[in-house]
Amino acid sequence: MAYPSPFPVIDDDQLPSLVPMADAIALMEQAFRLHAAGKLIAPPRLQSEVKTGTLMFTCGAIDDPTGNIGFRVYDWKQLSSPDRSEMTPLFSSRDGRVEGLCVGPLLGAWRTGAIGGAILKHVTSIESGKLALVGTGYQARTQLLAAVTALPFEEVEIYGRTIAKASVFVNEMKTQLADAGHPDVRINLANSIEQAVRDADAVISATTSRQPLYREEWLSENVHLHNVGPKFRKAHEIPVEVIDTCDTITTDALAQALSYDNFLLNGTAAGERLREFSELMQSVQESDKPKRRWNAIRTERSYCCSIGLAGTELLIARAAIQARIASESNSLG
Amino acid sequence: MAYPSPFPVIDDDQLPSLVPMADAIALMEQAFRLHAAGKLIAPPRLQSEVKTGTLMFTCGAIDDPTGNIGFRVYDWKQLSSPDRSEMTPLFSSRDGRVEGLCVGPLLGAWRTGAIGGAILKHVTSIESGKLALVGTGYQARTQLLAAVTALPFEEVEIYGRTIAKASVFVNEMKTQLADAGHPDVRINLANSIEQAVRDADAVISATTSRQPLYREEWLSENVHLHNVGPKFRKAHEIPVEVIDTCDTITTDALAQALSYDNFLLNGTAAGERLREFSELMQSVQESDKPKRRWNAIRTERSYCCSIGLAGTELLIARAAIQARIASESNSLG
Repeated sequence: MAYPSPFPVIDDDQLPSLVPMADAIALMEQAFRLHAAGKLIAPPRLQSEVKTGTLMFTCGAIDDPTGNIGFRVYDWKQLSSPDRSEMTPLFSSRDGRVEGLCVGPLLGAWRTGAIGGAILKHVTSIESGKLALVGTGYQARTQLLAAVTALPFEEVEIYGRTIAKASVFVNEMKTQLADAGHPDVRINLANSIEQAVRDADAVISATTSRQPLYREEWLSENVHLHNVGPKFRKAHEIPVEVIDTCDTITTDALAQALSYDNFLLNGTAAGERLREFSELMQSVQESDKPKRRWNAIRTERSYCCSIGLAGTELLIARAAIQARIASESNSLG
Repeated sequence: MAYPSPFPVIDDDQLPSLVPMADAIALMEQAFRLHAAGKLIAPPRLQSEVKTGTLMFTCGAIDDPTGNIGFRVYDWKQLSSPDRSEMTPLFSSRDGRVEGLCVGPLLGAWRTGAIGGAILKHVTSIESGKLALVGTGYQARTQLLAAVTALPFEEVEIYGRTIAKASVFVNEMKTQLADAGHPDVRINLANSIEQAVRDADAVISATTSRQPLYREEWLSENVHLHNVGPKFRKAHEIPVEVIDTCDTITTDALAQALSYDNFLLNGTAAGERLREFSELMQSVQESDKPKRRWNAIRTERSYCCSIGLAGTELLIARAAIQARIASESNSLG
């Protein structure tokens, strides 16, 4: 059943073809540049308790000539509902018109994956061969797609606590990666986290674990650790001691990270070295020899605390809406 | 140009036929009953400054067996843009699904009009003959339609500061009221506010005036004063002395009214008598002789401070979405 709408309504089935992951990654690089220039506005998240639910709003604005404001919203109390949805409407900041909206839980994860891919491109050597992915949930899917889109990984080793679930994940992702133009990536199921992360050039940790899962001696000297799962003092998947061994410690959303109660790195030595990735990107770009500096960063060990910079959803929603409008115009000849 | 949407997207052209004003008034009476029973949830309004705009959210929930949560949102900085829109998405509070949405500025005004009509029905005698409407803006339109839908007014006298604008308003509203099934209401343009309100059974004040516009001696003993426009200490259209002469002093949204800085009635004798309309409705209903008590209230002078009870938009949005779904099912046979 489809109803007519005066503006595009993009659902999860349409999003990947309208904004393929490579485009989403490029948009997230653009987001970091805008954020560093103060043109991606991301105020603190809002929350409204309405007795039978809790509406969570992540608002933002893109302060560029096109000019949009909008937000992502979902009912926090429905996070475990299989039928739950999210919505991301986009308003024009020139005239207040609704330009379109995205609906469904994919946009948030697509964006978080693309942020991971964009960061990986800058902090990991492109000759790198092996990716480790720990976790086989919803976020792990878009992280994996983004990583192999960002860099020419030859091999991905995946660990999931539940073997049956991990096998399904591997089979589904083989198909998805092949469909997305990456048929040659070898995907293996690891028997342990240690096996998965040994010799890996990058480790994406996308679990729900409240206990640290990694030992420093398992990790390569120049590994990139991408922390998608829990990052609180009382619940975290990567131990602070391991983070502390990293030369570069970043997050995509510093203010949001610091606003968390019990944020893992608060009051730690690693926390004192925590930088916003967009700011690092800008400082490298403004240096005399940016290429040499990126190469230096790529040969070091790095860590990124993935938060989900607010406002980034709007860039992807806008691209999807514009692509939808363009395809409609084309089909009209 | 229409795009396909997985749920109904109701715009301002469709709303009046999906939820005619008589239905909207009945829904607002239901809203007052739900609110009195603690089942229409309306927390304080949220606001997010995003540099190039200000997103305003009015969140709410309907805690009934159908169960919905949602909000109305608009960019406050675009209030004067002719192209601006508003959006009211509706989520199911059972499974977090998006059930549909309304888009456009009409829903808020349709709701505020319907609240005015619902209150008028209870506080004004149905034998009443003359309505005065002061103001000819966007809110005045829905207030007028709601008033003649709620009660069999024979005559409406309208005053607008700008004669040309007021004439256009009168002509447009004659057509609109005829189309809505009220062809016999006589609509006249008054030369002064005094002329408009003399002998009126109800006065709807829907101006933007920051100066008090009314004198006590112009008003009937049993008039109902409906205050849609400014109601702040430094900017108000109805003087406190006039409000103080009223026997019944109500508002549709007491908590919201009291949360305003500089709310006109704060610290006044009239303010001490200010009651929530839903609470008055419930207390009359629970009395021994509700009919006699309503009749007593109808023969007294009354005042209502119209705020726009949060959550009420959701009841109208839900009815519109359900009507749209039902009409689609019917057309499929």
